[in-house]
Amino acid sequence: MTDKFNKNYQYRPKRPLLIKDIVNGIKNGDKTILSRSITLLESKNFNERQLVYKALKDLAIVKSSSFRIGITGSPGVGKSTFIESIGQYLGTKGKKVAVLAIDPSSNKTGGSILGDKTRMENLSTMDNVFIRPSPSKGELGGVAEQSYETILLCEKAGYEIILVETVGVGQSETHVKELVDFFLLLMLAGAGDELQGIKRGIMELADGILITKADSGNEKNAQNACLSYQNAMRLFPENKNKWFPEVLTCSSLENKGIENTWNLMNKFRELYLSNGWLEKNRYKQNQFWFFEKLDQFIKDNFYSNKNIQNAVKKMQSKVTNGEIDPYNAALEIFKTV
Amino acid sequence: MTDKFNKNYQYRPKRPLLIKDIVNGIKNGDKTILSRSITLLESKNFNERQLVYKALKDLAIVKSSSFRIGITGSPGVGKSTFIESIGQYLGTKGKKVAVLAIDPSSNKTGGSILGDKTRMENLSTMDNVFIRPSPSKGELGGVAEQSYETILLCEKAGYEIILVETVGVGQSETHVKELVDFFLLLMLAGAGDELQGIKRGIMELADGILITKADSGNEKNAQNACLSYQNAMRLFPENKNKWFPEVLTCSSLENKGIENTWNLMNKFRELYLSNGWLEKNRYKQNQFWFFEKLDQFIKDNFYSNKNIQNAVKKMQSKVTNGEIDPYNAALEIFKTV
Repeated sequence: MTDKFNKNYQYRPKRPLLIKDIVNGIKNGDKTILSRSITLLESKNFNERQLVYKALKDLAIVKSSSFRIGITGSPGVGKSTFIESIGQYLGTKGKKVAVLAIDPSSNKTGGSILGDKTRMENLSTMDNVFIRPSPSKGELGGVAEQSYETILLCEKAGYEIILVETVGVGQSETHVKELVDFFLLLMLAGAGDELQGIKRGIMELADGILITKADSGNEKNAQNACLSYQNAMRLFPENKNKWFPEVLTCSSLENKGIENTWNLMNKFRELYLSNGWLEKNRYKQNQFWFFEKLDQFIKDNFYSNKNIQNAVKKMQSKVTNGEIDPYNAALEIFKTV
Repeated sequence: MTDKFNKNYQYRPKRPLLIKDIVNGIKNGDKTILSRSITLLESKNFNERQLVYKALKDLAIVKSSSFRIGITGSPGVGKSTFIESIGQYLGTKGKKVAVLAIDPSSNKTGGSILGDKTRMENLSTMDNVFIRPSPSKGELGGVAEQSYETILLCEKAGYEIILVETVGVGQSETHVKELVDFFLLLMLAGAGDELQGIKRGIMELADGILITKADSGNEKNAQNACLSYQNAMRLFPENKNKWFPEVLTCSSLENKGIENTWNLMNKFRELYLSNGWLEKNRYKQNQFWFFEKLDQFIKDNFYSNKNIQNAVKKMQSKVTNGEIDPYNAALEIFKTV
């Protein structure tokens, strides 16, 4: 910003990136190129997006051994402060950490490395940390269409720990689950905490639950909540991979419980690396996104037809009130092709 | 069976049903026609299925005010005995009850009103009760492709209470949720009951939980389980329609808790009728199945192409081990069209 007011400042338009710029930049771990690539990926312009997708093809040979962590919780639960704390903890240990914040309530258009400078201030100054708030298009329940590719780009740029922040209020949180290895749910302690607006079903998907804001004075509340959730989690069916989700407390402000949380995630990772599940799960996720994207292409292609759009519009009210059953309604639309 | 060994027995092939036979039979509440229609609906023969779908179009004008209840639980939890008990309770009250058992482990092909005669023996003798075990094709998580239409047929044949039995181990139980008004989860009390093989996430979808086999001698166990689940359910986020899922116990063998369970479901129904949610939810479900079926048509059409099938097959292993990212893999397949 100051540059503009410097008398020596000269406006130099950024040269548009070529595919090879992206490939080389990512391979070299260039933060600016990484950031610009993500911006292209989020662009509404098909050709801009294609640049990155084409680069990704060339980048397929770059292997990484990353740990993908999903962090979900309703607004106000303290996701950003927790991520700031654990990010600094990991950064100080010399880990390369990428933070991808997917905020569906945000209207930001991608483009700045730090869309919201007031968040994660200290974390953002660390050299080995990359922070990227991504606007979700609100389609896949808090997961933007290009979230998977954004993770891939960060990994190929050398980031070992990927923290994916989402708001657990979307339509299909299972999509978040398909992005990550470990799924951490943040919950608040205290009165009324049952009503946190988290989507039903999400709690059982968690590999760990963290009761936040266990700050001085609130420790007892947090401990009680912790016990309640522990009891609740025991009632859930066993995870097929012999992992028992644990419930912990933390105070991001007072930096308590951060190391414990990391140890829990690390324990999970070591178990899952040793029993081969981590790799197997990634394989499954690759398949999931392959068919997900293929289905999207097919559907987009179908629904982009103006005749079909109009036919669907007309049919919808008839289906809603039962004038026609869903099967026959769908068949009629399908026949209009 | 005995008929065949009767010396007066003459083989008379059943006349194939015409659309108008189905329409009239269903309108008159003819159990045999209803059963044969469901068999046609489950047929692998496209033209046979179409007969019923066409009939459904004519039957759109027949309105009904039904209560659709989903009953889910792992094998051995006592779904059939519970349904036998509550079915008799409701049947004795003069209600017209249809029981649709969707058993994904079953290899039965549809066709008999009582595929498994040893189940629900007493219930099946009641005039105002219709029982139909349906083989699930194992696609939609225990929901057969034609489950929604089967429910519609029963309703249009005059059945007021539809009990849909499923095993909660499928891929997407949310599909069961989209079939019914009330979703009851059956759980076992006693040691190891945490590990019941129910799919994670399903507990939070339940509108009520019923601890089964609270038989004499096991009452204390059941009561303890009931309390634990009650506590757990309180931790879940509030249902947006002000319904707090309750946990009850029952002994189907000793006929205890059956009336309580019905009262709970009825309380739910009255609340949801009064606040308009029942109708609103049905509308939403109609929309859900409309797009679900339309998407299925589109996908079936795409994947039925032999070239595409081969291309997908070849691509899958490349995607799995990360030789190509999911987006580019999907794009390549899509371009083969």
